[in-house]
Amino acid sequence: MSNALPNEQPEKIYLPRTSESESLKKIRHTTSHVMAMAVQKLFPEAQVTIGPWIENGFYYDFDKPEPFTEQDLKTIKKEMVKILKRKLPLVREEVSREEAQRRIKEINEPYKLEILEDLEDPITIYYLGDDWWDLCAGPHVENTGEIHPKAIDLESVAGAYWRGDENREQLQRIYGTAWETPEQLAEYKRRKEEALKRDHRKLGKELGLFLFADPVGPGLPLWTPKGTVLRSVLEDFLKQEQLKRGYLPVVTPHIGRVDLFKVSGHWQNYKEDMFPMMAEDEQAALAEQGFVLKPMNCPFHIQIYKNELRSYRELPMRLAEFGTVYRYEQSGELGGLTRVRGFTVDDSHLFVTPEQLDQEFLSVVDLILSVFKSLQLKNFQARLSFRDPASDKYIGSEEAWSKAEGAIRRAVQTLGMNYFEALGEAAFYGPKLDFIFHDALDREWQLGTVQVDYNLPERFELEYVAEDGIRKRPVMIHRAPFGSLERLIGILIEEYAGDFPFWLAPVQARLIPVSEVQLPFVKEVAQKMRSLGIRAEADTSGERLGKSIRNAEKAKIPVMAVVGAKEVEANTLSIRTRAAGELGTIAVAEVLEKMENAIANQENF
Amino acid sequence: MSNALPNEQPEKIYLPRTSESESLKKIRHTTSHVMAMAVQKLFPEAQVTIGPWIENGFYYDFDKPEPFTEQDLKTIKKEMVKILKRKLPLVREEVSREEAQRRIKEINEPYKLEILEDLEDPITIYYLGDDWWDLCAGPHVENTGEIHPKAIDLESVAGAYWRGDENREQLQRIYGTAWETPEQLAEYKRRKEEALKRDHRKLGKELGLFLFADPVGPGLPLWTPKGTVLRSVLEDFLKQEQLKRGYLPVVTPHIGRVDLFKVSGHWQNYKEDMFPMMAEDEQAALAEQGFVLKPMNCPFHIQIYKNELRSYRELPMRLAEFGTVYRYEQSGELGGLTRVRGFTVDDSHLFVTPEQLDQEFLSVVDLILSVFKSLQLKNFQARLSFRDPASDKYIGSEEAWSKAEGAIRRAVQTLGMNYFEALGEAAFYGPKLDFIFHDALDREWQLGTVQVDYNLPERFELEYVAEDGIRKRPVMIHRAPFGSLERLIGILIEEYAGDFPFWLAPVQARLIPVSEVQLPFVKEVAQKMRSLGIRAEADTSGERLGKSIRNAEKAKIPVMAVVGAKEVEANTLSIRTRAAGELGTIAVAEVLEKMENAIANQENF
Repeated sequence: MSNALPNEQPEKIYLPRTSESESLKKIRHTTSHVMAMAVQKLFPEAQVTIGPWIENGFYYDFDKPEPFTEQDLKTIKKEMVKILKRKLPLVREEVSREEAQRRIKEINEPYKLEILEDLEDPITIYYLGDDWWDLCAGPHVENTGEIHPKAIDLESVAGAYWRGDENREQLQRIYGTAWETPEQLAEYKRRKEEALKRDHRKLGKELGLFLFADPVGPGLPLWTPKGTVLRSVLEDFLKQEQLKRGYLPVVTPHIGRVDLFKVSGHWQNYKEDMFPMMAEDEQAALAEQGFVLKPMNCPFHIQIYKNELRSYRELPMRLAEFGTVYRYEQSGELGGLTRVRGFTVDDSHLFVTPEQLDQEFLSVVDLILSVFKSLQLKNFQARLSFRDPASDKYIGSEEAWSKAEGAIRRAVQTLGMNYFEALGEAAFYGPKLDFIFHDALDREWQLGTVQVDYNLPERFELEYVAEDGIRKRPVMIHRAPFGSLERLIGILIEEYAGDFPFWLAPVQARLIPVSEVQLPFVKEVAQKMRSLGIRAEADTSGERLGKSIRNAEKAKIPVMAVVGAKEVEANTLSIRTRAAGELGTIAVAEVLEKMENAIANQENF
Repeated sequence: MSNALPNEQPEKIYLPRTSESESLKKIRHTTSHVMAMAVQKLFPEAQVTIGPWIENGFYYDFDKPEPFTEQDLKTIKKEMVKILKRKLPLVREEVSREEAQRRIKEINEPYKLEILEDLEDPITIYYLGDDWWDLCAGPHVENTGEIHPKAIDLESVAGAYWRGDENREQLQRIYGTAWETPEQLAEYKRRKEEALKRDHRKLGKELGLFLFADPVGPGLPLWTPKGTVLRSVLEDFLKQEQLKRGYLPVVTPHIGRVDLFKVSGHWQNYKEDMFPMMAEDEQAALAEQGFVLKPMNCPFHIQIYKNELRSYRELPMRLAEFGTVYRYEQSGELGGLTRVRGFTVDDSHLFVTPEQLDQEFLSVVDLILSVFKSLQLKNFQARLSFRDPASDKYIGSEEAWSKAEGAIRRAVQTLGMNYFEALGEAAFYGPKLDFIFHDALDREWQLGTVQVDYNLPERFELEYVAEDGIRKRPVMIHRAPFGSLERLIGILIEEYAGDFPFWLAPVQARLIPVSEVQLPFVKEVAQKMRSLGIRAEADTSGERLGKSIRNAEKAKIPVMAVVGAKEVEANTLSIRTRAAGELGTIAVAEVLEKMENAIANQENF
């Protein structure tokens, strides 16, 4: 019985990220060269192409007629270890383009010639000892002896196309990893294995929460009854929180005219992320007279705001919708729930006066923090996603952007939050505060977002009548604590390793009779629980007790109640929970009360 | 203060429908001729075209350069009364095609010539006295004296195109009505006026429930906070009923591959009712490789069923979803909520063994009847919508259709329901039981539907493992008690005339302070009500009491609570309800309790 709870690791080993570590960049870059050298030594017919570092290691693409086998990887690794132990120096040499061409032709590597064409001067070459070199800009370690032979490994082989173009040569990509120390490699492997166990695609299937169906299409999840419970509990929880805070629920269509998205700017700035237009015929298509699936809810909530002339008395107006949106992600990018083509945003758009902006922004952040707390998500940072001043992909004035970015910076400073600024990560219409969550395996996920927007109110000419009778422009706040319900559930499955907290679990309790004799009692108690809103079920399988208990464990149901003759007589239940193990025999009434309290307080049973 | 409740008419006058009354057909047909004769007498330049009876009267289209005015209609009606009083006989004459042509040319009526071309032999002409005749197949009254001059009226003028073709001549259509008795005409006018008052488009706007926005598109309603409450209350009510009856909620995407709808048969049989395909480019469009908005939820629920091999133990499996679907109604057909392009079906698909079919069908009908009862909808019939044996637009075998139609017929007979059979009204994949509701104005609306389907299980090759271990095919029941949430709300607005029952009303109570002094008390009580789930609001407008009361009446809020100094002192509320008028002063605690009970029992306060 696995009781793995988040953040329960015995010792915490820090794993640096390549992007943040010069040392790792050098190690991985060099190890990729070492691998290519080893491959060409063992398989002289293999031609090399490119081999960059990636977040968890490196890869190298080879052109080789025979596929690499598992056994090949082992042999290659052995050869790599030999090279490391030779302590070969890495020597940088600057050469002229002509000299580079000459040397490439000498070793007959056509891909390198093509790579050379795209390189800018100066052309640099890195030698690995005397035998092997590659076109490369570095950086590298001084010599291969700096890399610990027990801190590297080869992981897998996959197909790849030269230049990512499926009309070009098919190559073989070997993925490897390399770390500063053997301990880091061990920790990396442990996390990888744990991540595999927690993989929400695997767990989602085992727990029967959602499915993808080929006839429906990639990235379009269908939610089973159990998964739908999960969605509903999360939705209802946030709806209740929002009701308390004066949010007003609305419902809007999933499609709108192209024209609507021209006014909002989505058509001009976001079209490639949208599904193709629905047009009656070619003429309508050419005239862009058709409908599109909404990639965001904002233009629709704006229509509701615009439906009447608003007074300052009505502001802040917080329109909220669990709105399902559709984005045309490339099918290669889709995987499980964390990247989908259709997802439900726990969206709200707040229309506020400029004077209300700071206070409302703080209230929104406060709501998001309280949501994270309920979900037991503790470890996160604030990312201030601002515009890239060098890019022209944004709409709106310099002044509007400065004001919006200022409001966000003030808020995180007021709250004393752990934050960093990321230029170029803004939405095209405004800057954002994103919550970056670090999970139990120290992976980063984006969850929750708040945006300040002076631009859409301008584009849609929104107004309110101020206290002095003058028509003024409101500011908009876009916000979504979950971000996407699908993505959140994917992350929660991995974070909890499928062990949902009691209040969230699709099935909260399973009642198991020791024999058929206790079945009527078990059914009665289960029915009683359900009438109190507890998601309980009776085990009517007729399986042996041991099998029934194992089934409930496999289904990761938080509470198991075993009922034998003694329990029936005493009106008790023999309780076993995933969080705390055996709790012994407890009176039915007490169990019911404890369960109701646990649900109300979002606590474990 | 209007307290009009459904079915509270002092005397019930039966209004026959033209389609069901030979007598009305004759009267209306003849009156249309009388009108045309009157028009040509008064406006000799007017050319006649066609003039059929319609459900509530008749019309006639004229080609006339000058538009008809309101005053013209009065003059025409006077002339018609004169014609009626002349007791002109209607004389039928059969003529040869050549003779008909000759006579038409004689009176120079080019439209009649064109009409003649499409007529089949024998050609018949009806004379109205000696002066006027028309090409017509009848039937007519014997003489105009049979039509009571006080049982006819002219109603309006509208534009129309000759042959409904916007490239042809623009004509003027005069709408009129005619009845057997002056009493019928009076009742018809009363109902028409009442219908205008109840018009859900008008009331929906006045009560602020929903809106249409041109940039979003026709037939795509957006729901305001108040309208969303209405939706949620209805949804939650049905969800609770379904939970009790073992339905399993699911969530599915709004789009799917074209291929999915090819398997289901929608693409071949229902394509013209679907939105255009979303295809990446022309090539994909030609290959029909793209996505489409779902017009129905069935193929998606089927995917969830198919996701695992099912056992007889899991059946009946009742998958339920408030699924929003999209249908490409012609924009000319759109109006308010009763005909929209996007709507939410309270959909469920039951997968049952053949042995379970009859019992499950009865359970579904029972659920629908209990839903109608809660909604206070009393007056309905069952329409058995069967296939048209002469048409080939259906999928599936003769045998499957017979079995399905048989199951439906057995069910309504078992229940002793008032029913009729309508050939040609089936869905393309199976027959239906539709509930035809007659509203307070005796109009017919379709609400709620149950379908039996042997065909989709066949097309999708659905299976379950039966008790004997053999794989068998389940039967599907499609059902939706509301039908469409949008349509239901439109009908309810009209049926209730905007006066929602207490449990459904978006705002249930408004608390009005006599002066500012009572505002804190009023706010406190409103807050207390909200914490109990009562939708209460405090009137903070600062308006005079009279104005505040009128505002609450205009908003049709079921309960008004006025609070003066005396009420604050005694902790009471002075209650006034729309249903029962003044209730006097009642203790706050008692009001709260009565409100909670009224909500729980779906009763008036």
